[in-house]
Amino acid sequence: MAQQSGVNDSSKPSKVENLLTLDYNNLTSDAVGPENGLEAGDLTSLKGLLTAAAKDFNARRKKGLLPFADLPTDTEIPKACRKLADSGRKKYENVVVLGIGGSALGTSAVFKALRPLNHNIQEDKKRGWPRLFVADNIDPEGFLAILEETDLSKTLFNVISKSGATAETMSQFMIVHDRLRKSLGAEAIKEHLLITTDPENGVLRRLVQSQGLSALPIPPGVGGRFSVFTAVGLAPLAMAGVNITDLLAGAAKAVEDFAAPPMANKALLFAGLNYLMTTQKNRTNLVMMPYADSLSRVADWFGQLWNESLGKAELLDGTRAAIGQTAIKALGATDQHSQLQLYMEGPRDKTICFIGVDDFRNQIKIPAVFKDQGELSYLCGRGLGELLNFERLGTARALAENGRPSLSLTSPKLTSASLGYLMQTLMLSTVISGSLYRINPLNQPGVELGKKFTYGLMGRKSYEDMAERYHQGKINKKYIVP
Amino acid sequence: MAQQSGVNDSSKPSKVENLLTLDYNNLTSDAVGPENGLEAGDLTSLKGLLTAAAKDFNARRKKGLLPFADLPTDTEIPKACRKLADSGRKKYENVVVLGIGGSALGTSAVFKALRPLNHNIQEDKKRGWPRLFVADNIDPEGFLAILEETDLSKTLFNVISKSGATAETMSQFMIVHDRLRKSLGAEAIKEHLLITTDPENGVLRRLVQSQGLSALPIPPGVGGRFSVFTAVGLAPLAMAGVNITDLLAGAAKAVEDFAAPPMANKALLFAGLNYLMTTQKNRTNLVMMPYADSLSRVADWFGQLWNESLGKAELLDGTRAAIGQTAIKALGATDQHSQLQLYMEGPRDKTICFIGVDDFRNQIKIPAVFKDQGELSYLCGRGLGELLNFERLGTARALAENGRPSLSLTSPKLTSASLGYLMQTLMLSTVISGSLYRINPLNQPGVELGKKFTYGLMGRKSYEDMAERYHQGKINKKYIVP
Repeated sequence: MAQQSGVNDSSKPSKVENLLTLDYNNLTSDAVGPENGLEAGDLTSLKGLLTAAAKDFNARRKKGLLPFADLPTDTEIPKACRKLADSGRKKYENVVVLGIGGSALGTSAVFKALRPLNHNIQEDKKRGWPRLFVADNIDPEGFLAILEETDLSKTLFNVISKSGATAETMSQFMIVHDRLRKSLGAEAIKEHLLITTDPENGVLRRLVQSQGLSALPIPPGVGGRFSVFTAVGLAPLAMAGVNITDLLAGAAKAVEDFAAPPMANKALLFAGLNYLMTTQKNRTNLVMMPYADSLSRVADWFGQLWNESLGKAELLDGTRAAIGQTAIKALGATDQHSQLQLYMEGPRDKTICFIGVDDFRNQIKIPAVFKDQGELSYLCGRGLGELLNFERLGTARALAENGRPSLSLTSPKLTSASLGYLMQTLMLSTVISGSLYRINPLNQPGVELGKKFTYGLMGRKSYEDMAERYHQGKINKKYIVP
Repeated sequence: MAQQSGVNDSSKPSKVENLLTLDYNNLTSDAVGPENGLEAGDLTSLKGLLTAAAKDFNARRKKGLLPFADLPTDTEIPKACRKLADSGRKKYENVVVLGIGGSALGTSAVFKALRPLNHNIQEDKKRGWPRLFVADNIDPEGFLAILEETDLSKTLFNVISKSGATAETMSQFMIVHDRLRKSLGAEAIKEHLLITTDPENGVLRRLVQSQGLSALPIPPGVGGRFSVFTAVGLAPLAMAGVNITDLLAGAAKAVEDFAAPPMANKALLFAGLNYLMTTQKNRTNLVMMPYADSLSRVADWFGQLWNESLGKAELLDGTRAAIGQTAIKALGATDQHSQLQLYMEGPRDKTICFIGVDDFRNQIKIPAVFKDQGELSYLCGRGLGELLNFERLGTARALAENGRPSLSLTSPKLTSASLGYLMQTLMLSTVISGSLYRINPLNQPGVELGKKFTYGLMGRKSYEDMAERYHQGKINKKYIVP
């Protein structure tokens, strides 16, 4: 594949041009009717909301409360990651990320988008960079499948947990640490571990100090789902051959463009339009539907970003609520044959966001075969990417004619810079959405209770009450059908 | 990995025992409160609805209108597929499915569930069976990534399209046919193609006849999303080493168990409970959340089955409507760190369906390392699968305490038989759901308009009006932000 061939990176970014276009014609009442779409008046009122949200954002950023917005112009960590990549390139055949949620999704998304889709199954020579595996679950079958394919002596394990206490990641780490020690010896372990965690606190940081392990920091104030442009994402991505310099340059451009006035500001508009569709048009589901295999994991990454940030039970003023929009992943054209029927005819609870790429990095022409079969002649000589893009446009129009609203984000080409731009725009947009809903987009209080029950069931000390509480739950055998 | 080692298949199925348990305690008002859950009276009224739906199902089945229900006891096609697998095992290094939607999802689901998760990256010897790729999109980058990894001379392409006119699949086929002819010669082509299509009609069937290609039939009356147990799924799966005999035996057992009375009938209850949750409790989203990497594609397969079947704009009596529940895929424990916050605190529009496996096919013990770190000692000596299952239980309880309803489907072990049982149960349940909503679950009229626009944009003959209609659409440049 053409992308990322040759030298992957230097500290000088490539020239950044137009990287993303937002088109929301199909969200307006002109396209989908006044019941389903936004009218001129809605958009006028939006302007005021967005101006206030941007002001609030900038004030909080100034106070240092939104450090994620300044990551793209950091130079120190990217430099360290490029250095790691240079030395690791010859040393390791595999990089395995041990991380879950925000420690995994950004890396998976960028890796799939910017490295060849066959990266991990290519021959070593052709690939030129280590294979990258992201072990983001504790299923023993899945984890063993990765361990079986990665020769310990040629593998770097990048253990990523901000708190240093994540049960899943620490379990994986304990298994790997033990295997490394047993097969390579205690001294060699250090060569195969890279720890990414809080710069000061937590078990992982303590282990770094006591065992003298290599480590990179996760800056305080940057939560997992906003951390792709910290060492969390940059280290494994650089080691797999991603051009992180251009990735960050694209992200920096998105931050620059965030200074634009509301109706010319993609991050503000993406937040505002979805806010109106959710609160005024009851479009409580947001389908993210890239028309590019390489972007399918970006939709997964966005799924955490949007859902975990906006799904909240409490407004900033303390009022109880049940806020949020559910981002759902789909993939074009594949899911036209799976989900489109529902999007066209089912409940009017969805906005579709198409993500498109004008030019693909590879082209395949459909040859003029089967000429005697008239039904196929329209395909002869056309590009596969051309067909894919016409399907995207045709689907958007069909939805609109059926009163089903959509918007689209399109890049001229998928590059490191355009991907960085897209992801940073969506992160900015997520925080802005928090302002619009008047919730805190940076916390996740709802996940604690399940963890506590798990600790109780696992017999963790001082969680005995949770085990007891669990077992007091009434189970009615009538409702269990074998 | 242990599963599927040794001889994979014979015509004699293994003994079938308890394969699936449905537990809906957490859907009841006892667990989640009367606002969120079902009360005894709801369940009583459900009994009548389900009895009627089952009666309707059986009458239609008798008339031959539901042939999918009889597939598990067919012997002819499975025999042909086993024969193909036996001969293809030595002949081919790769099997590549060219198919989309229902021609791809079932195969991907079963393959991931029953073959080792590293099947395609394992060494040839260890694997013992051809690699299996499912090319279910026309992204040129994705398709080339597969073609680059599969030596044409060692590859069988299984072209699957019921109509024989699917634009995506036919485009892929044209590309592959041309490449085969150019690199191996016209005569050799036949050795590398297997066509699965309608037994009589369509372009693909005509090509089979005129070019003398190998072919398997898709039985009339079985739509794509119900076709996993036809040659559509069985042929590629058998060739990749899946025990299709046991898979079908499990499915057959699900059909047998479908004779049980409503409140002891998993297929009926799954339909009925979700119907009540949707229509009475406004749970319009159904999150399918397996706690097993191997089952993640089953959730994708279900996503088509449920959404395309139930998302309908018209009731059987012709009334206009906007019916359907949106099945969403999630994966435990991974998505506890991505989606759970929304499920716990966001809009009360979801039912969560956990899919669990009691015993994993591999175990890994977490070793007793880092003994000086007290926070980690609860993990020492425990199984990774044990932790995963406690997380599933802990999450379900946390959701319930927060008034968030869930149900669970659990298998003692993931085997060919238990997977067949699960999938057939869900297919039966989908058709029953159609009866409850009073819609036709077997058609998909909503997908035609988008296809027509695509034809128009591609310049297909006699679709000139669609191109014109497309270009007449008003685009307001104000709503495009570069």
